[in-house]
Amino acid sequence: MNAQRDYADLVQRGLSLDLTRGKPSPRQLDLANDLLKLPTSYKAADGTDGRNYGNLQGLAELRELFAPLLQVPAEQLVVGGNSSLAVMHDTIVHALLTKVPGAERRWVEEPEITFLCPVPGYDRHFTICERFGIKMVPVPMNGEGPDMDVVERLVAEDASVKGIWCVPKYSNPSGVTYSDETVRRLAAMSAAAPDFRIFWDNAYAVHHLTDTHAELADLLALCAEHGNADRAFVFGSTSKVTLAGSGVSFFGSSPANVKWFLANTAKQSIGPDKLNQLRHVEFLRDTEGVAAHMRKHAELVWPKFELVDRVLAKELGDLGTWTSPQGGYFISLEVSHAAEVVARAKAAGIALTPAGATHPYGQDPDDRTIRIAPTYPDLEELEQAITGLAVCVRAVAEERA
Amino acid sequence: MNAQRDYADLVQRGLSLDLTRGKPSPRQLDLANDLLKLPTSYKAADGTDGRNYGNLQGLAELRELFAPLLQVPAEQLVVGGNSSLAVMHDTIVHALLTKVPGAERRWVEEPEITFLCPVPGYDRHFTICERFGIKMVPVPMNGEGPDMDVVERLVAEDASVKGIWCVPKYSNPSGVTYSDETVRRLAAMSAAAPDFRIFWDNAYAVHHLTDTHAELADLLALCAEHGNADRAFVFGSTSKVTLAGSGVSFFGSSPANVKWFLANTAKQSIGPDKLNQLRHVEFLRDTEGVAAHMRKHAELVWPKFELVDRVLAKELGDLGTWTSPQGGYFISLEVSHAAEVVARAKAAGIALTPAGATHPYGQDPDDRTIRIAPTYPDLEELEQAITGLAVCVRAVAEERA
Repeated sequence: MNAQRDYADLVQRGLSLDLTRGKPSPRQLDLANDLLKLPTSYKAADGTDGRNYGNLQGLAELRELFAPLLQVPAEQLVVGGNSSLAVMHDTIVHALLTKVPGAERRWVEEPEITFLCPVPGYDRHFTICERFGIKMVPVPMNGEGPDMDVVERLVAEDASVKGIWCVPKYSNPSGVTYSDETVRRLAAMSAAAPDFRIFWDNAYAVHHLTDTHAELADLLALCAEHGNADRAFVFGSTSKVTLAGSGVSFFGSSPANVKWFLANTAKQSIGPDKLNQLRHVEFLRDTEGVAAHMRKHAELVWPKFELVDRVLAKELGDLGTWTSPQGGYFISLEVSHAAEVVARAKAAGIALTPAGATHPYGQDPDDRTIRIAPTYPDLEELEQAITGLAVCVRAVAEERA
Repeated sequence: MNAQRDYADLVQRGLSLDLTRGKPSPRQLDLANDLLKLPTSYKAADGTDGRNYGNLQGLAELRELFAPLLQVPAEQLVVGGNSSLAVMHDTIVHALLTKVPGAERRWVEEPEITFLCPVPGYDRHFTICERFGIKMVPVPMNGEGPDMDVVERLVAEDASVKGIWCVPKYSNPSGVTYSDETVRRLAAMSAAAPDFRIFWDNAYAVHHLTDTHAELADLLALCAEHGNADRAFVFGSTSKVTLAGSGVSFFGSSPANVKWFLANTAKQSIGPDKLNQLRHVEFLRDTEGVAAHMRKHAELVWPKFELVDRVLAKELGDLGTWTSPQGGYFISLEVSHAAEVVARAKAAGIALTPAGATHPYGQDPDDRTIRIAPTYPDLEELEQAITGLAVCVRAVAEERA
């Protein structure tokens, strides 16, 4: 009973380690400390006073900087506050309470609304749906993104399907980047609902960890090309570029959708924090500035991804499979009896995202997926945590054998 | 026909002046320029890293600083983003989509929702109601706040009345501060709707312009005292304390309402911009720091209020009446044929808030109220604008005589 002894030893050590959330480490945040002294000027490029009210869409210079990175024309990009999650939440609120372009009615008047949720996926997307009583239907992910045969069938057949959540690049938590063919099919497929929308949470657009950069097809352009110009809502932020709590967020879409979005936000606010926008422009400068900054993140984060891969390979053998992403923030581990493994880890002082969190309603039907968030702990803590996690997997496997 | 000749002269001068919005002047914003170099440390008082995710309620040190100023216990105060308008908007969204404490159903399920709107009032409050199809019923303001006989009757009789908008101190636009008796009656009155709420937009809580400081009774305490603990939603912000676009906002209420509010915002965001909170704590320091800063504002703003009062007294005679507030941002002018006066002023290059904007649906039944926002222009421009406005009032009066 080697594994049981190892687990007893692990508990004995009284660890207190946290792998729950995708938080940048203090050293990553240090990379952006210059932001605390910026901006040096409150004047925007067009001369307006960044300290006062106004400019609902956000400063042109910041939109131009992020337009190529998010694959949205600058004039179709809107800058929001410090949280892209809030922009996504509010976009659903707007759709519930004000008809989206092409809709027959407000979503709140629909008898049922369904969102497709590629799994494993991001728990905070699911939480928004649960809050508003939006039914979630899981769709399995494969190495090219969501299973498009399933997506195409459900979207074509069921007019209650109003949306699909996508993290298309270095996906949370599997690290998969959608293939060109997947993106093309998403843009081209027929939809029963005239107001069907793709919620394109491009959270890791620039978050490469190696020299192999994943390339993502241009969803907005492809939607327009296939006669579905209003299909895509694009979201992004600098939360994991500059500072997690003090970044800027983005909404991008077709001209009609942007007009709808701004008409709604005009009732909500007199304008965003433009000093924080100026701070970001001055700090990041241009596309190359962003890339250079992300290379510094990669120097800190890539060794952690390598470490997780190495420890799992050494300790788990064939007791699990896991992804080895070249970017993003997460690694997805598949094992038997995931919930029990997570409970065992917790008892040993290793906090993991709850098993099931990667699935709608917290229900992983196969009880297999564990999301690993390796960025926050330092290398030593991470090695302890992953080694400990492997001990838990082995202990559970041995018991269940 | 003196007034017509004066008006012709005015048009000839080709002015371009803007009195539309309550915007701080560049010199007022200069007072807070030190914020651009802050914070000097990203550590909160409890040691947490202000740069990372988290702390949905906001930093304790900032809540403690503003608790006495907003008359809300620090533990019942929540810090929001840069816009209290967004907090008000989102509070209504939350009430529409998630039952408020005491409610029988979500507001979106109610056949009709009515808000009482003391008039003259703030147009952006009305815009939020219009967006969501909330019926607005005007209630006349007097020198002590809204006519409480009317308010008490409507709130007691009509269960569709779910809210009332109040700017209780240095009210927008009349400058009136609610009397103790008005506040007591608001707290104590019976309401037909169990989920009736007072939307207490205390935007000008610390915005004294003279040594005569208006005192406002403590609504939250009075509501609790009268067995209506959950009746008040308190809002505030530093938009007109520090920087209009880059301040912090506040939501305060009873423990049950705060729990409800945070449960909703927890689905919306992983936390506010805490660096901006630290910036504000470091810059404003304490209650006396806020008061000292507001005195600097008053030195810039009070001469403008005096000027408006002086010019109107000299030029208008008995052709109008206006308020002479000792605080806040606005002066309310009452004249005959207000819409025509505003149109004349516009033709002469003087932009005013549209006539009627101070009333629900933009309809001022008496066509009398003009909101004057004197803060943004410098003294010379302001004198030109108010003198020109008086010319327009006289020209219209002469024509209509």
